[in-house]
Amino acid sequence: MTTWRGFASDNYAGIHPEVMAAINEVNVGHDVAYGDDATSTRLTDLVKDHFGPIAEIFPVFNGTGANVVALQAMTRRWEAVVCAATAHVNVDEGGAPEHGAGLKLWTIPTPDGKITPDLIDLQAWGFGDVHRAQPGAVTITQSTELGTLYSVDEVAVIADHAHSMRMGVHIDGARIANAAASLGTGLREFTTDAGIDVVSFGGTKNGLMLGEAVIVLNPAAAPGVDFLRKSSMQLASKMRFISAQLVALLSDDLWLRNARHSNAMARLLEERVRQIPGVAVVRPVQANAVFAVLPTDVTARLQERFRFYTWDQGTGEVRWMCSWDTSESDVDAFATAIGAEMAASG
Amino acid sequence: MTTWRGFASDNYAGIHPEVMAAINEVNVGHDVAYGDDATSTRLTDLVKDHFGPIAEIFPVFNGTGANVVALQAMTRRWEAVVCAATAHVNVDEGGAPEHGAGLKLWTIPTPDGKITPDLIDLQAWGFGDVHRAQPGAVTITQSTELGTLYSVDEVAVIADHAHSMRMGVHIDGARIANAAASLGTGLREFTTDAGIDVVSFGGTKNGLMLGEAVIVLNPAAAPGVDFLRKSSMQLASKMRFISAQLVALLSDDLWLRNARHSNAMARLLEERVRQIPGVAVVRPVQANAVFAVLPTDVTARLQERFRFYTWDQGTGEVRWMCSWDTSESDVDAFATAIGAEMAASG
Amino acid sequence: MTTWRGFASDNYAGIHPEVMAAINEVNVGHDVAYGDDATSTRLTDLVKDHFGPIAEIFPVFNGTGANVVALQAMTRRWEAVVCAATAHVNVDEGGAPEHGAGLKLWTIPTPDGKITPDLIDLQAWGFGDVHRAQPGAVTITQSTELGTLYSVDEVAVIADHAHSMRMGVHIDGARIANAAASLGTGLREFTTDAGIDVVSFGGTKNGLMLGEAVIVLNPAAAPGVDFLRKSSMQLASKMRFISAQLVALLSDDLWLRNARHSNAMARLLEERVRQIPGVAVVRPVQANAVFAVLPTDVTARLQERFRFYTWDQGTGEVRWMCSWDTSESDVDAFATAIGAEMAASG
Amino acid sequence: MTTWRGFASDNYAGIHPEVMAAINEVNVGHDVAYGDDATSTRLTDLVKDHFGPIAEIFPVFNGTGANVVALQAMTRRWEAVVCAATAHVNVDEGGAPEHGAGLKLWTIPTPDGKITPDLIDLQAWGFGDVHRAQPGAVTITQSTELGTLYSVDEVAVIADHAHSMRMGVHIDGARIANAAASLGTGLREFTTDAGIDVVSFGGTKNGLMLGEAVIVLNPAAAPGVDFLRKSSMQLASKMRFISAQLVALLSDDLWLRNARHSNAMARLLEERVRQIPGVAVVRPVQANAVFAVLPTDVTARLQERFRFYTWDQGTGEVRWMCSWDTSESDVDAFATAIGAEMAASG
Repeated sequence: MTTWRGFASDNYAGIHPEVMAAINEVNVGHDVAYGDDATSTRLTDLVKDHFGPIAEIFPVFNGTGANVVALQAMTRRWEAVVCAATAHVNVDEGGAPEHGAGLKLWTIPTPDGKITPDLIDLQAWGFGDVHRAQPGAVTITQSTELGTLYSVDEVAVIADHAHSMRMGVHIDGARIANAAASLGTGLREFTTDAGIDVVSFGGTKNGLMLGEAVIVLNPAAAPGVDFLRKSSMQLASKMRFISAQLVALLSDDLWLRNARHSNAMARLLEERVRQIPGVAVVRPVQANAVFAVLPTDVTARLQERFRFYTWDQGTGEVRWMCSWDTSESDVDAFATAIGAEMAASG
Repeated sequence: MTTWRGFASDNYAGIHPEVMAAINEVNVGHDVAYGDDATSTRLTDLVKDHFGPIAEIFPVFNGTGANVVALQAMTRRWEAVVCAATAHVNVDEGGAPEHGAGLKLWTIPTPDGKITPDLIDLQAWGFGDVHRAQPGAVTITQSTELGTLYSVDEVAVIADHAHSMRMGVHIDGARIANAAASLGTGLREFTTDAGIDVVSFGGTKNGLMLGEAVIVLNPAAAPGVDFLRKSSMQLASKMRFISAQLVALLSDDLWLRNARHSNAMARLLEERVRQIPGVAVVRPVQANAVFAVLPTDVTARLQERFRFYTWDQGTGEVRWMCSWDTSESDVDAFATAIGAEMAASG
Repeated sequence: MTTWRGFASDNYAGIHPEVMAAINEVNVGHDVAYGDDATSTRLTDLVKDHFGPIAEIFPVFNGTGANVVALQAMTRRWEAVVCAATAHVNVDEGGAPEHGAGLKLWTIPTPDGKITPDLIDLQAWGFGDVHRAQPGAVTITQSTELGTLYSVDEVAVIADHAHSMRMGVHIDGARIANAAASLGTGLREFTTDAGIDVVSFGGTKNGLMLGEAVIVLNPAAAPGVDFLRKSSMQLASKMRFISAQLVALLSDDLWLRNARHSNAMARLLEERVRQIPGVAVVRPVQANAVFAVLPTDVTARLQERFRFYTWDQGTGEVRWMCSWDTSESDVDAFATAIGAEMAASG
Repeated sequence: MTTWRGFASDNYAGIHPEVMAAINEVNVGHDVAYGDDATSTRLTDLVKDHFGPIAEIFPVFNGTGANVVALQAMTRRWEAVVCAATAHVNVDEGGAPEHGAGLKLWTIPTPDGKITPDLIDLQAWGFGDVHRAQPGAVTITQSTELGTLYSVDEVAVIADHAHSMRMGVHIDGARIANAAASLGTGLREFTTDAGIDVVSFGGTKNGLMLGEAVIVLNPAAAPGVDFLRKSSMQLASKMRFISAQLVALLSDDLWLRNARHSNAMARLLEERVRQIPGVAVVRPVQANAVFAVLPTDVTARLQERFRFYTWDQGTGEVRWMCSWDTSESDVDAFATAIGAEMAASG
C-alpha cells in the first residue's frame, strides 16, 4: 500500500493518533451497549462544557444520519425544512431526508451557500395553508459546502428570524470545528449562544475513524431524538468506541488543533496559487476549502498525479480540501505542480 | 475503569486484537472514500471466496441498517416481508423497517423462533389481491433470536418454497458465524448453496468494533443496494476502516475461531447449569445463547454481580450470551455463583 | 344493466335517495373549495350535536384514508399502533399505514376481533426502550370486522387502560352506525363519553356514494389533522358534495334508520338459516354481518346465483353482509336458496 | 343559499348535468366494489378509444392522489422526480409526494411554468452516483399552473430527451382537456403519440363531482399501479360512481365541450380586460386562466364582490380562472366591474 495524501476530501484522511489511542484505551473487557457506559457519560459531560449545561449529545454513525435524525426531531409529520439549494442535505445525501424520513425540503438558491432572513422568506410563508408543506425548521451549514462562513451575528439573526416564525434552527456542522477555528470562537458562541436549537456535530472529517453526533441545545425543539436515532438505524451497539473518539476530539483542544491546521493549510494553498498566473480563486477561503478555476487540460493532467474533484464541469471550477494531516510540503508539492502545469499549458 | 465480562450480550464485548491490528494497518495516509479503496476491493474478493463468485458485499454500520437496506432492495414499494413474530426486525429495531422504509411485516408466531413452509403459508397468500400488502420476501434469522438453528436442509426447503411463490429469501445473519460453526459448514452451504438471495452478515457481535454487511447472492433479487445503502444513511465515508475489519474477520478463519469459541462457552455453561438443581435450560443450545428459568430472587441477586438480561418477566426466563472473549473461568465463576445462589434460595 | 342485490358487502349497495337529493341540492352555482363552504359548516354543527361541542370533523374519501390520517395525528414519528390482528388497518389496507405513513402496527391475536386491556398488555410494554417501537395509540373497530360489538363499558375500560399508559384510543367506525343501532345508544355514548380520542366515521357503507370522516373528540390527542389530511391525499376540492352527503346521513336519523335496517336484515337472515339443518352460524350476530359454515359444494352453487365472500377457505366459513337496501324478500330468497341447496347436498 | 359564480378556481364549479345524470343512471341495485363492475369496464374501453389500445385507466379520488400514485409507479425507491419549481406536485400538495411516498423532487426554476430539455439537464445528471438521488422520471403539467401550454412538439422533444436518459415522463393533466381544446388535438396526440408514459387525467376541474385517473400508456414504465392505488389510499369502494362520471366526461365530447367553453371564456375575459387602461395581462392566455396585474386597491375592492385569488402579493398579480359553467354574462359583469374600479382608482 503506497502512502499518499491528496486534496479530494477531508474524509480521505485517516484516524488521528490521539483518537486511535482513545479507541485502544476503552478496548478492555465488556461494557454496556447502546450508550449506558462510562465513556459515553464522560462524553455527555464534555459536551456540556463546550455547548452549555443543557446540551445533550446523541452519537450517530455519519453526517447524513445526524442530519436526518435531527431534522425529524425538529419537525412534525406535516412540516418541511428550509435550506440552501446547495445544502448537503439536499444534494449529497441520496434523497435520505425524503426517502427515509418523508421530509420535504424547501430549497433556496444562494450565491455563496449562505442563506439570510430575506432568502428564508422566499420559502417561509403559507403558514396555516394546508396546501403548503409547513415550514417547520431551517437548516444552515457551518462552514458551508462552498467553504464560506456565517459570522456569529449572521447566525443569531437567522435564529431570531426563524424563531419569530416558530421554526427551529439546525446547523449541519460536518465542519463545525473549521468554522469555530476560523471565527476564533469556541463552539457555543455561534450555536447555543446564538439561539441554535440542534447541531449535527462532525467528527469524521476532523480526525475520527467514524462518528458524528446530534447535539440538542434546546430540548423542547427536538423531542424524541433517542427514539429517532434507533428508528433511523443510527444507534451503535458498541457505543463506547464512538464515544471514546468524540471524547478524544473534545479533549485537549484536539478538535481545534486539527481544524486550525486544515484551515491554515487551505490559506497557504490559496496564497500559493494566487501567485500563479491564470489560476482564479473564486470563493472566499474561510475554512479548509479552496475553490479555483483552471483550464480543463491542466486539471486533467493534475488529476493524474493528485486526487481532487471537479466542482463544476461547465466552468472548470475545482475544489481542493485540506485536512488535519495535510502537510506544508503537501501544499508545496501541489502548488508547484499547478504552477508547472499552468506554465506548460500556456 | 474496572475490567469485567458478563453474559448480557455479545455486543458487550470489545474489539478482537486481530481486528484492531487491521484497523491500525490501514491507518496510513489518505485513501479514497466510500469504498473505492484497495481494502474494500480485497474484501470483495474474500467474500467471493466464502460465498461464491457472484456474491457482492456492501458494508454498513449496524444490523438494523443491513436488514432494512436488504429488505428494501428485495421488495417493491407495495410488497411486504414475512417473518417470525420474534424476529429482530420486528421486535428490536424501533420500528425502523416501517418507519424508515415503509415496509410492512407479516408476522408469524413460532414456538422456537424458526419458521417453516407451513408457517410461511399462514401469511404468504392473497397474491394479486390489492387489499393485501403483497408478500414479497421472507426473512429468517440464523442463528435465531432464541439461540436455535436452521439446518442446511431446513433453509433450502424454505428457499424453495418462497421462490415457488416468487418471494426472495433473506437471512438476518447477525450471528451467522455462530450458525456455521455449529452446523460445521462454511458460510455458503446454508446461504448461496441453499438458495438464499441476500444475507445480512454480522461482524459487530463477533469481534468487530462496528461493521455489518449486506451480501447479495442473487443480484436479480435485490437491485439498487448501492443506492439504498446511501439513502438509508448506511454508507461510511472512511470505508477502509470498516472493510479492514471485515477483511480481518474473513481471513485466517477468525470468524470461525471466534464463533466456535463463543458456542463452546455456551455449551460449557449449559453443561454446568444443568447440574444445578432447580435451574431449567428451556431451549436447545445450538449457538452462543443459553436460555434458562431461574427463581426471580436468584436472578435478582445474580444480576447484582453479573450482567445478563431477563428475557421474559412472566416466566422468569433469562438469557445468557457468550462472546468471543468469554473465558472458561468466566463461565466457571458464573456457574458457581448460580449454584451458590440457588442453594441459598432453596 | 340488470338489477340485483347480494350479500357480499355493504359497499356493493348504491346511494340512498336522501343522500342523492342532498348532492343535487348543493349542485348550484359555485362554492368555495376545500371545506370553506356553508354545507361544510353545517356539517360541523351537526357533528357537535352528535358527538359533543368539542368534536371537529374532517371529511375524507375512504376508510383507509380516515384511519391513516387519524393514526398519524395520534402518534409521533417513533410511535406504533396497537390493534387486533384481524383489524382492517392491518389486513385489508394494502399496507397503507406502513407504506404511506411509516406506522408500525403491534398486532394482537383475538378470538372474536375484540381486544381487551389484558390483550393490549401483550403489546403495550417497553415504554422508554428505544429498541421497541413505542406503543402510542390503540385502535379498535366498532362494530368489528367479525360482526361483533364492544359494549359501552368495554370501550370505556379500554380507553381508561390506554390513557393510563399515555396512549390515545381510536375507533375505526366504518360501521359505527350499525354499532350504535345495535347498542341502542346515540353516537357519543361509546365514543366521546367513553373517552375515545378520535373516530373514523363511516358513511360509504351506510348509504353514501363516497365519504368518511376523521372526527376528533380530543384535539390535544390528535394535532395536525387538517395538514395530514392534505399530505395524505385525502382532501377533496369540491368538498360541498362530500359534506352534503354526511349532512344528509346525520340528519333526520338517516344514519340510524339505515343501520337499524341492515342490522335487522342480518338478524332475520340469521334466524332463517338457523332453521336450516347443517348450517352453523359461527359468530354472534351483533351488527349487519352473519358468519356461517356451509359445505363447500353448497357455497359454490350458491355463489353462482348470489354474491358473497368465502371468509376462510379452510373451514368453509362464509360472510353475508346486509346493507341499507337489503329487503326482506332478498333475505327470503337467499335463505330459501340456502335451504334448497343444503337439501340437494344432503 | 345564494347562487354565484366567480373566477377563483375551476374547482369552485359544480357537477355538470350530464355527469349528474350518469351518477343517477348507475345508482341501481348492487354492483361489485373496487372496479369489477360493468361501468368501469366501459370506462376502460373508452380510454382505449381516446388514448390508444394499450392505455389502462385507474380512477382515483383527486389530483394529488393521481400524481403520487403515478410517480411512485414510475420510480424505484431510490429515484427522484424532475419537475418545474412551480409544479403543483411541488408547491400545492402539502408535501404529499415526500411525506406519503418518500419521493424527492429535483426542482427547476422556469420563466413560464414550462420545462425544456435544457432545463431538465440542470437536474438530470449524476446517474450512477449514489450521493445523488437518481433522476428517475420527469413530470410536466399540461396546461401548466401558469395557464401556458406545451405544443405537441415540445412534449415529444421532452419525452425523447428523458427517455434517452432512461427516465419516464409523466403529465399532470389536471387540466389536460383545456390543453387539448387549445391545441386543437385529441387527447392522444400530445400524450401517447408524443411518447408520454403516464398521465394524471383530470376530471374534477372539468365538470365532475370528484374523480381523476392514472392512465398508464406504457405499462413497462409504471408497474404496480393497482397495488399503489390501494396502498396510497386512492381506491374507491363504490367505484361505479367515479367510473360513471369519467364515462360521461369521455362520451359525446363532454370533456372537449367543457374545456372549449372555459378556454373561450378566458379568452373573452382577456380581450375585455386588455381594453381597460392600467390592467396588464402578464402571461399568454393559452387555456382557461388569465393572469393580470392590477393596483392593489382595485383588487381589494373587486374581491369584496367577486371571488378570485391574488397570485403574487409582491407584484399584485392575480389569477382569474374560467370554468365549464362560466357564462358570457359572468365575464361581462366581471370585466365591467374591473373597468369601473380602475376608473374609480385612477
